[in-house]
Amino acid sequence: MSNILAVNAGSSSLKFQLFQMPEEIVITKGLIERIGLKDSIFTITVNGEKVKKILDIKDHAQAVALLLEQLTGQGIIKSLDEINGVGHRVVHGGEIFHDSATITDKVIDQINQLSELAPLHNPANLTGILAFRNVLPNVPAVAVFDTAFHQTMPESSYLYSLPYEFYKKYGIRKYGFHGTSHKYVSERASELLGRPIEHLRLISCHLGNGASIAAIEGGKSVDTSMGFTPLAGVAMGTRSGNIDPALIPYIMEKTNKTADEVIEILNKKSGMLGISGFSSDLRDIEDATKQGNERAELALEVFANRIHKYIGSYAARMNGVDAIIFTAGIGENSDVIRARVLKGLEFMGVYWDPALNKVRGEEAFISYPHSPVKVLVIPTNEEVMIARDVVRLINK
Amino acid sequence: MSNILAVNAGSSSLKFQLFQMPEEIVITKGLIERIGLKDSIFTITVNGEKVKKILDIKDHAQAVALLLEQLTGQGIIKSLDEINGVGHRVVHGGEIFHDSATITDKVIDQINQLSELAPLHNPANLTGILAFRNVLPNVPAVAVFDTAFHQTMPESSYLYSLPYEFYKKYGIRKYGFHGTSHKYVSERASELLGRPIEHLRLISCHLGNGASIAAIEGGKSVDTSMGFTPLAGVAMGTRSGNIDPALIPYIMEKTNKTADEVIEILNKKSGMLGISGFSSDLRDIEDATKQGNERAELALEVFANRIHKYIGSYAARMNGVDAIIFTAGIGENSDVIRARVLKGLEFMGVYWDPALNKVRGEEAFISYPHSPVKVLVIPTNEEVMIARDVVRLINK
Repeated sequence: MSNILAVNAGSSSLKFQLFQMPEEIVITKGLIERIGLKDSIFTITVNGEKVKKILDIKDHAQAVALLLEQLTGQGIIKSLDEINGVGHRVVHGGEIFHDSATITDKVIDQINQLSELAPLHNPANLTGILAFRNVLPNVPAVAVFDTAFHQTMPESSYLYSLPYEFYKKYGIRKYGFHGTSHKYVSERASELLGRPIEHLRLISCHLGNGASIAAIEGGKSVDTSMGFTPLAGVAMGTRSGNIDPALIPYIMEKTNKTADEVIEILNKKSGMLGISGFSSDLRDIEDATKQGNERAELALEVFANRIHKYIGSYAARMNGVDAIIFTAGIGENSDVIRARVLKGLEFMGVYWDPALNKVRGEEAFISYPHSPVKVLVIPTNEEVMIARDVVRLINK
Repeated sequence: MSNILAVNAGSSSLKFQLFQMPEEIVITKGLIERIGLKDSIFTITVNGEKVKKILDIKDHAQAVALLLEQLTGQGIIKSLDEINGVGHRVVHGGEIFHDSATITDKVIDQINQLSELAPLHNPANLTGILAFRNVLPNVPAVAVFDTAFHQTMPESSYLYSLPYEFYKKYGIRKYGFHGTSHKYVSERASELLGRPIEHLRLISCHLGNGASIAAIEGGKSVDTSMGFTPLAGVAMGTRSGNIDPALIPYIMEKTNKTADEVIEILNKKSGMLGISGFSSDLRDIEDATKQGNERAELALEVFANRIHKYIGSYAARMNGVDAIIFTAGIGENSDVIRARVLKGLEFMGVYWDPALNKVRGEEAFISYPHSPVKVLVIPTNEEVMIARDVVRLINK
């Protein structure tokens, strides 16, 4: 029996979840927000109740110190010796990390070097790693990468049709993201289907603020919709997904902006927010369509249409599919989106039940029992994947 | 009976084909190259034999004069009165032209205004229109647009998930190209299948130096792979097709180039040329794979993989497909590409015969007779479509 802390450090936040392993029992979880700003917010669950504190937390080191102090102070654990391992989510593992890795000086250097590929995320993830390393120097720590699961993609999937030296010199290729989530739901689907993952062709739709689709054959990612960055692929809450690349200079000229500023628009002002003109939140958009808002209707339709087409394309990639999985905020909760995405896939054997599709946030089959292709809703759980990887690497 | 001249004017070239209509007999055809350069080349077919002249042709007006002089001088027609109509290929018809249009002063203005969307093509097309208008002022002329066929796409297909005002203010949307070719082969497929086009779901793969895929439902384009410009969609000879848009500023920074220069690389140094490193010509690449060249193999695989996935995605778009069509240089002639594109589509009912697939440059079914989805090779004929539209509009 061991206690494993799963950590996700952002630039001004730190999410944590403490597991008792191998039972995978969540002992506590919480969130520290507004790190480095005034009135930081610390939230932790104690005996099933949320405890919230507002105080100034100047940096990640202080956030980690506070978290550890609360774990013992609230009686959640008796002493820090009861923490047997820490797992850190890291966004970009480049081509170096095909699996999670025990954190060493070398691994820290490598994550730091990979910051060039994820300038917003890797440095923040590292801050969390270093803060824990400082207070718990003797507790094993593991880095779990968002990209690692997709490292099984063959070259013909990950290579862009650009000058080949761009790949060799600058690392320009498709990396893919949400790997921990795609891996979790695909393994869980194998269990729910009662079939070994080696024999399954799965399409996983991780639909949250960010959204990505993955083609998973025999448990291995063979293609995914996000690319060099998380901007590519399907339309998202505020991100454009794929567009004609020639539009970048055209928009630059029309709006008198730099390329970086245009990419900022593509990341933050596009997607459902761009089309609807009022919100990136699917719930707002669904509500507006009920009032007859045409732009909201269009945003919904574009969002669903792109995912629908990816499903067709990934079915072609694997010459068929055994199950389609919906996960993450939208995928788990929006029957409206699932219905629009799934409509018109009968040609490839997808038959789903509108009544079953009403499910929200829990594991369920929404396909008819006789449907050749199964459709599942599976709430994702990246934290438990991190805890599992920590245990696996500690025991190695 | 009437004689119709179909014209395709590029920036330094002019292709022509003279038809006897409605029989659709090609009376003559030819090409003028290097207009405005030294040693221009004039080629014309006389009684089935190619006649070639090298001389200096300073502009399109002179090229047209020479062409008309040769038509009578070589005895192909007795006088210019025997030309009853001229049809001009025009690349961009924007949202204005949903069909071909009889050329008037207003239409010329509109084509000129649309030059902003096709700065390399529309001005060259216009040069041809004006040169003919000058010498044959009383002969009806018609503009046939590459984009017109795709104007039937619904908003959810053509709209990018960008700020909506980009569409309203700047005309930023998917237009699609190769429309005349997609229309021709889809109509021809309906004839060959012996089924009314209204009841057919077709996927047309126009694979030449430029390549685009179209989803055609009931004779109407409902989606296509090219976008705001012909750069988007699948990988091509020298064009990248879709890439992560965030790569533009990244490549700019790495190579110290402007956005326009990067797009130039995406248009001219990418695609199969970029990956193989030595040629954009599929024949060279196929030859090299036979010598075991790995980069050539990769170029071929990436090219085929992207088309394969589009077929899956457009089948999903239409909830199935009745026939897949291959056309244009590569589509008509490369059994290697067709085989790689078609491999692994059995899940959606595509069964094809490797022996039948050996066909080159002629109309043929390459699917097995029992295949639910038919696969056809159909040589495209944009020129006859232009001639047909001229006749149709003259008779209106």
